Amino acid sequence: MNNHDKHKALITTVPFGQYNNYPIELLEVNNIKYDINPLGRRLKADELAEMISEYSILIAGTEQITKDVLNNAPKLKLISRVGIGLDSVDLLIAKKNGVIVSYTPDAPAPAVGELTIGLMLSTLRHIHISNMMVHKEIWQRYSGFRLSELTVGIIGVGRIGSKVIRHLQGFGCKKILVNDINNGVILPDFANVEFALKEKIYREADIITLHLPLTSDTINLITKDEIACMKNNAVLINTSRGGIINEGDLAEALSSNIIYAAAVDTFIEEPYSGPLIGLENCLLTAHMGSMTADCRASMEIQATEEVVRFVNNAALTGVVPDSEFFNQKEI
Amino acid sequence: MNNHDKHKALITTVPFGQYNNYPIELLEVNNIKYDINPLGRRLKADELAEMISEYSILIAGTEQITKDVLNNAPKLKLISRVGIGLDSVDLLIAKKNGVIVSYTPDAPAPAVGELTIGLMLSTLRHIHISNMMVHKEIWQRYSGFRLSELTVGIIGVGRIGSKVIRHLQGFGCKKILVNDINNGVILPDFANVEFALKEKIYREADIITLHLPLTSDTINLITKDEIACMKNNAVLINTSRGGIINEGDLAEALSSNIIYAAAVDTFIEEPYSGPLIGLENCLLTAHMGSMTADCRASMEIQATEEVVRFVNNAALTGVVPDSEFFNQKEI
Repeated sequence: MNNHDKHKALITTVPFGQYNNYPIELLEVNNIKYDINPLGRRLKADELAEMISEYSILIAGTEQITKDVLNNAPKLKLISRVGIGLDSVDLLIAKKNGVIVSYTPDAPAPAVGELTIGLMLSTLRHIHISNMMVHKEIWQRYSGFRLSELTVGIIGVGRIGSKVIRHLQGFGCKKILVNDINNGVILPDFANVEFALKEKIYREADIITLHLPLTSDTINLITKDEIACMKNNAVLINTSRGGIINEGDLAEALSSNIIYAAAVDTFIEEPYSGPLIGLENCLLTAHMGSMTADCRASMEIQATEEVVRFVNNAALTGVVPDSEFFNQKEI
Repeated sequence: MNNHDKHKALITTVPFGQYNNYPIELLEVNNIKYDINPLGRRLKADELAEMISEYSILIAGTEQITKDVLNNAPKLKLISRVGIGLDSVDLLIAKKNGVIVSYTPDAPAPAVGELTIGLMLSTLRHIHISNMMVHKEIWQRYSGFRLSELTVGIIGVGRIGSKVIRHLQGFGCKKILVNDINNGVILPDFANVEFALKEKIYREADIITLHLPLTSDTINLITKDEIACMKNNAVLINTSRGGIINEGDLAEALSSNIIYAAAVDTFIEEPYSGPLIGLENCLLTAHMGSMTADCRASMEIQATEEVVRFVNNAALTGVVPDSEFFNQKEI
């Protein structure tokens, strides 16, 4: 029995190999047996726990990989996450059980950055609302705001936040206020970018966008108290992770027009069916931050290449650093 | 009877004075009598013809100011267009009837430029479609394309096209191919911008956006023949004027997936109720290019200031240049 025969991979992230077949080819060329998530949607923890026992490798999406899941996975040796967030993985139990966790933190950033600007412009100009109305033959000209006239607040200036700043340079916003958990973060060298306390961002920004991991420090970062400090015309954008903004508080603020609008791409439970549904001033998208042909392809290829390295006993390149474990201490 | 008493203005553009009351104040401070379009939507030519006889000044939107309208306007001395397009005004008859035509060509450009980028990003990432689906509690993750990876074709590099190029700099598109009726147009000095024949743009661009006036040269610029040259993944954007793209041909191309998608903000007849309705791959908005608080305010203020100058016999600053008359020769 060679090393490859020992292994079998479960691919839970969907879609997989849709726009680029190379990850599938990589597995096949390397004689790595695999199965793809038969449900075609994000698995629930109990579904995954039931499915996982025979697999040594998990090519994972954002489904919850809980203690229960891990304790039902006696053969599991590697979790290769297609993407950046690790809030879904119980890293400490994985370590205890001897399961290596790798990820692809750089690959999704360009696609998330562009979606963020798209959500800003749609929300500011009511593009999505006008589209629905004109398709119903209702003609109403909505008035909106221009990005170039506004102060944008960016909380989190890592891989994605810094791309958002770069895109905004083409608009020449009035001001870009940024905040990062890392006070020593190096800001992009643009004239209109300045570091600010989160409280100042809540008070002064017209658009606030979050580019943070979900950790014990960031969960419920934005609740009704923070929203109460915001401008009446503020727009709140979340393309990072559900739970960083308290969903119930946001729904209440939007339905009573405490802020102008929000755009949300990520939710605590996905598929989403919570209180933001039906609020016209809340643009909702289906966790599509990374969903461009090029970024999905690089995420899937990078995650699969890591699997091939693992099976061939080569040095891994995407292993999650210790700092990510530290983030999870109390979430 | 003083000079002000001689005059009475009809304001046909709607909304007017909604976000900034200064234009209304200007009229009142200057004792200029006015009425506002009682129908609250774009007037049809026969409606305007019926209404216009007693007015000496028209503060106009994009409604058709035809020969019939002008010949029913014995007192009319000034048309002050709130905006840029003059395709709606029969300039030659206006001149023959001794009616001065002014406009505000610079004011809408920044708002139209931003909407154009918003329509590109919405279309590329299916933001508007995902929003409709999630609000119906249907969870589908659409895959799209990233602006930075694409070749953008811009036809018309005047006030608006050059703003679009500027915004795109923040994305670092693969290439920006531009074409202008004026071969001597000065291109913005960016590394990735190059002049190209329209035929090359049709063949090579992934996104094609039009920033042209509607004239005898541009009407039906894009018909099924031009669409047939485009890439299968091409996205077509029109925020300039209806009629530049043949609407029927576009609807046919979209329903048979000859191109990937389109986004259309302007139509031959508005309110729009033609064959693009109901096509999921056609993003439709209600002629909202200029609809931001700041741009609407400057358009309305500039057009009203011209009216005040006219009434006070001061030199006008927005009179339409002869080149615009030349454009209309055969439309």
